[in-house]
Amino acid sequence: MITPIWPEVVIGTENRDGGGVTSTNADSPSIGELGEFGLIAAMAQRLAPGPGTVVGIGDDAAVLAAPDGRVVATTDFLLEGRHFRRDWAGPADIGHRAAVRSLADVAAMGARPTALLVAFAAPPALSSAWALELSAGLAAEAARAGATVAGGDTARFDVVLLAVTGLGDLQGVPPVTRAGAHPGDVVAVAGPLGHSAAGLALLAAGHREPAALVAAHLRPAPPYDAGPEAARLGATALMDVSDGLLADLGHIARASAVAIDVHPAALDPTPLLPAAEVLAIGGRPAPQAASAPQAALEWMLTGGEDHSLVAAFPAGTTLPPRWRVIGEVRAGHGVLVDGHPHGGPGGWEHFP
Amino acid sequence: MITPIWPEVVIGTENRDGGGVTSTNADSPSIGELGEFGLIAAMAQRLAPGPGTVVGIGDDAAVLAAPDGRVVATTDFLLEGRHFRRDWAGPADIGHRAAVRSLADVAAMGARPTALLVAFAAPPALSSAWALELSAGLAAEAARAGATVAGGDTARFDVVLLAVTGLGDLQGVPPVTRAGAHPGDVVAVAGPLGHSAAGLALLAAGHREPAALVAAHLRPAPPYDAGPEAARLGATALMDVSDGLLADLGHIARASAVAIDVHPAALDPTPLLPAAEVLAIGGRPAPQAASAPQAALEWMLTGGEDHSLVAAFPAGTTLPPRWRVIGEVRAGHGVLVDGHPHGGPGGWEHFP
Repeated sequence: MITPIWPEVVIGTENRDGGGVTSTNADSPSIGELGEFGLIAAMAQRLAPGPGTVVGIGDDAAVLAAPDGRVVATTDFLLEGRHFRRDWAGPADIGHRAAVRSLADVAAMGARPTALLVAFAAPPALSSAWALELSAGLAAEAARAGATVAGGDTARFDVVLLAVTGLGDLQGVPPVTRAGAHPGDVVAVAGPLGHSAAGLALLAAGHREPAALVAAHLRPAPPYDAGPEAARLGATALMDVSDGLLADLGHIARASAVAIDVHPAALDPTPLLPAAEVLAIGGRPAPQAASAPQAALEWMLTGGEDHSLVAAFPAGTTLPPRWRVIGEVRAGHGVLVDGHPHGGPGGWEHFP
Repeated sequence: MITPIWPEVVIGTENRDGGGVTSTNADSPSIGELGEFGLIAAMAQRLAPGPGTVVGIGDDAAVLAAPDGRVVATTDFLLEGRHFRRDWAGPADIGHRAAVRSLADVAAMGARPTALLVAFAAPPALSSAWALELSAGLAAEAARAGATVAGGDTARFDVVLLAVTGLGDLQGVPPVTRAGAHPGDVVAVAGPLGHSAAGLALLAAGHREPAALVAAHLRPAPPYDAGPEAARLGATALMDVSDGLLADLGHIARASAVAIDVHPAALDPTPLLPAAEVLAIGGRPAPQAASAPQAALEWMLTGGEDHSLVAAFPAGTTLPPRWRVIGEVRAGHGVLVDGHPHGGPGGWEHFP
């Protein structure tokens, strides 16, 4: 292992590696013991290059096929203590969620995800087995989207930090932005709403059941191919639901200079009712809700991180069954619920 | 401003925002006061889209021209306390250095940098003026490389974190990896060696002079266009010097299954001597050096972060003057200095 030549510039991290932050495993060396290059080699072994990988892991940069002549690119943090907790989520869960954030953003432009680049920082005492499970989680979700992990960066830090870049190919279609919705368009969703929020509320209250909803938070499963499908169907606006349905429709309404009206009757609360009931029974009322159906509705309207896709389509577009029409675009501005402003909080902002 | 709906999941950061970590400025609102979307809008105003930007800041992902049909992509962390200190470097310096890391990696494949994506996390109390100066530093260095900032992410954290993704275009040439060096090739460098290390040693010892060397650490200025130039000249291997000359030549030697011999007589210590003398006069000997010229040589051989470009070229290649021949490729393995192993430490590793 190479010795650092300027130990004096490694400041402020040594004494913060304690408590529950680090993870050791008697059966696997720590990443500090493995060393940077040993860690990269071990991770790379588990990350096979894809057909579009011209140069993969191990050089200054990756080189990837961009057959369309344009490339879709997005980058997202997943930070310990801010976006995940290691006592709630395992390494494969965390890798999965880090992949989802970027892959869903690529799909939300109407593109096919092709590759991820993963910047990974961690304490040296972290077990290498943990890091390799994280890689496996990243790779498995990337594979579900048709993408591979093609490169990245490693660094030492006192908590686990991930920054994942997603790349994608538009396959000849125009990108679908947030700015094209027109009055008269219908608004439709592919994928679940509120499931991740319900799962998070369960975890926060100390529950691990209903398991399907907890899993929906730890491992959301966006329908990535619904992104290119929406583009082919002529979607006028497209996003993934990361901040919450109303908040994200607010972004479309602002960018498109339109109003969007959501119809709660089109949202099915059934899958969420068991979570609302568990939380009420535990003495912890679901947020701002007098009843389980109201709690479920609130999760569907304002819960983020399902990374389902929401789109506006011209009226009369024949939509495949996985697209559920939940509202419509009107002249005006803002997001309404059955014609009225929503009473509760709207969604997630990062610097409250 | 939108209220977060799950305050209970924002863990472990509230009480760590104190001390020297945050920065306030009476003349500018904090980024918490500005809010996530206000901050993004203010940053975006200072980040003009480039000619290759199909979709820029403000959508789920950026869309960028990739005229070559391949895209070069790399991602790098710049973490407070690990890669920079806010008491040594100003926000424009930090933005500059974050840009350099990714832009140099793109150039080191033989590509022209086209765009950066910037993930930025910071404490809410950070002044928005600081964040905007950071953006300006990123944009200015990107512009020097011919690139623009096309997208990114923001998050709240207790220190400043940056993860910068660089994208580039190969303009029809094959990528130059680390793996193509052949015995008989010459090894040449474009850009300074050891200047950043000398500047860092000065800062660590409390000096701000010689200013040119301190600036070389805070704002390294790699010759990005030397990357595509090397590719056009037929370079067989190419890297940027980020970990240190010997360490990075070690990567080329390993990937190419060759030995590389460096000739110190070809390295000019003159620009570094004033730093070595200042440090010796201050009672702090330059690392592992009995004399100023020896300290200068050590910086040139093992100092990282100049992000100069080092390449192998077939013998007889006519090189433009900025490429200085400093050694040659031989059969064998490892990196030698005038035929002998180097006595000192080799360079930088992230999990020592």
